[in-house]
Amino acid sequence: MIHPLMESIATALYIGKNILTEELLNELCAQLKTVMIADTKVADLYGIKISKLLNTQLLTLPSGEKAKTKEIQEEVIDALFKMGAGKDTALIALGGGATTDLVAFVASIYMRGIPLILIPTTLLAMVDGAIGKTAINTSFGKNLIGTIYHPKAVLVSVETLETLPEQEWFNGLAEILKMGLIYDPDICPLVQKNRKDPELIVQAIKGKISIVEQDPLERHLRRILNFGHTIGHGLEGISHYEIPHGQAVAIGSLVEAHLSMSLGYFSEKEFEEIQELYNVFSLHLHNTYHRQHLLKALSYDKKSIDGKIRFVLIDKIGHALPFGGMYCRPVSLDELEPSLVWMEKNYG
Amino acid sequence: MIHPLMESIATALYIGKNILTEELLNELCAQLKTVMIADTKVADLYGIKISKLLNTQLLTLPSGEKAKTKEIQEEVIDALFKMGAGKDTALIALGGGATTDLVAFVASIYMRGIPLILIPTTLLAMVDGAIGKTAINTSFGKNLIGTIYHPKAVLVSVETLETLPEQEWFNGLAEILKMGLIYDPDICPLVQKNRKDPELIVQAIKGKISIVEQDPLERHLRRILNFGHTIGHGLEGISHYEIPHGQAVAIGSLVEAHLSMSLGYFSEKEFEEIQELYNVFSLHLHNTYHRQHLLKALSYDKKSIDGKIRFVLIDKIGHALPFGGMYCRPVSLDELEPSLVWMEKNYG
Repeated sequence: MIHPLMESIATALYIGKNILTEELLNELCAQLKTVMIADTKVADLYGIKISKLLNTQLLTLPSGEKAKTKEIQEEVIDALFKMGAGKDTALIALGGGATTDLVAFVASIYMRGIPLILIPTTLLAMVDGAIGKTAINTSFGKNLIGTIYHPKAVLVSVETLETLPEQEWFNGLAEILKMGLIYDPDICPLVQKNRKDPELIVQAIKGKISIVEQDPLERHLRRILNFGHTIGHGLEGISHYEIPHGQAVAIGSLVEAHLSMSLGYFSEKEFEEIQELYNVFSLHLHNTYHRQHLLKALSYDKKSIDGKIRFVLIDKIGHALPFGGMYCRPVSLDELEPSLVWMEKNYG
Repeated sequence: MIHPLMESIATALYIGKNILTEELLNELCAQLKTVMIADTKVADLYGIKISKLLNTQLLTLPSGEKAKTKEIQEEVIDALFKMGAGKDTALIALGGGATTDLVAFVASIYMRGIPLILIPTTLLAMVDGAIGKTAINTSFGKNLIGTIYHPKAVLVSVETLETLPEQEWFNGLAEILKMGLIYDPDICPLVQKNRKDPELIVQAIKGKISIVEQDPLERHLRRILNFGHTIGHGLEGISHYEIPHGQAVAIGSLVEAHLSMSLGYFSEKEFEEIQELYNVFSLHLHNTYHRQHLLKALSYDKKSIDGKIRFVLIDKIGHALPFGGMYCRPVSLDELEPSLVWMEKNYG
């Protein structure tokens, strides 16, 4: 007896300037109670104002990746129980990727899932974090606990970027460039012209949605989003999240492009083009970097099978190799070594 | 811009005698690594044998509802990381409802979801727990943390019931009778004839699947599965899970049928018929019962809105009231009181 269960899930996506109006928020939250959750920095900048508009309670989180722990997750859950939040309570996550990841994870497990609205306020969260992803970190690595869960709505209000620190622009840019390398060949030329072009946000979000729609359960194509992140997550973990995500992903993308080249898939000419694009970053490994720590961290990567590390690889700018639908390939330590040596020489 | 994401999920259900063969298990787990997780009692009875058949590792859990905590969940997750379990590792949960709930929850959050096979070995887990449900308990109440997650397969091998203690039969029977009250009028006459008829298992599973298929995300109809559980979960929580689930749900079902009657929806004649069916149980409240504790616990129920308790109610044997698609109705403390008095008088 086979019993298929069909589920249909719709996420509404709003992008524009100054879209966080009382009208839109009230429409989205009609007949729901709401709790807004923001990190302390974003709460000061926007959270207090928006929570007043909505007449909702505001919970604050410590800011940054270090807040994405099971301890903070439990604190948020306990606070929700104590305020009597039920299945009719929508969580509104306001902030960067750490906030949207953590709040989305809480929404997905609280009473088997409650409504969720994401308002990403960093370029990184807009182009990457906020779409179809929930996660917390563990002592074994980054984003290793999480669910597949779809928010009711994602609101990208670009004026929130006006207060964004320069470093945060680079965090987002690393993900935008990644999308350019794996999926959308139009992105890299746009970055070359103007790396702050708002069109880049739309283009990167479109790419991500297109990939997630084709593979909502992360079984094949969606793996390509992990390009640059095998090395990137490893570098973040061993720095105890002191290296910014954008730095780690930028270095990771270059190393994995180098690996694609050294395995014979990707041309030297295009690798040189890429290196030029990444010149706007000032990249360097964290001062605690050791190759052995990185290799240990890589063995816990979500794509690993039988302890063998697998990498997403590209064969040209804008295209990841399908490898028979697996979209990644095991790489031996011998094969990986030249790319790590290259990284250590250039950024060590 | 609206972006609908479609997901299609298939659970294979196998019911029969002696179906736990090497052939079936290997077929289901082809190309996957496996980790079997069983409670200590079931591990001794079946787990060691089956894990040898499959040549898989066996993790054991403490037995019973008290194991369904975040601490045990974290221990299992840490053990999985340490043994290098990845996205290609299937978890096989073998045991009662506490084991299937906990392992299913772990499978749903480990690396955003890994394959899951459930082998329920109690009547309760077969007819209720193992289908579309994952959960752990919190200090605020039972099953308050969990996800919607679908196993790859559920294997119901009825010979495992031969070693089932008599009390466990009653735990399952309480859920079978609940299905009879809310959805399938054929069940109660079957119970009256022979409460151990294996056909009852098939009938109850069919009812549950039919309901879950109509409402996989627990938004409307699926709420009726909660009949008897508003009071039942409350009684369990305040006894610190010392009262067996079947006792709690049997008392809960009677109280909620009494409530349906006292609110004018359900006939006295049918209420008397029901009472007779429940005579096979020897029902009594736990010796720590206090009405005030129960009322406090009820306010945390998943169906509560604005602190108002809501109940699933029936208007005849085999039919729950739809209440405009909500499938539950707020009940004031004054309305509830006569039914609590009736319960305390009969089972106190």
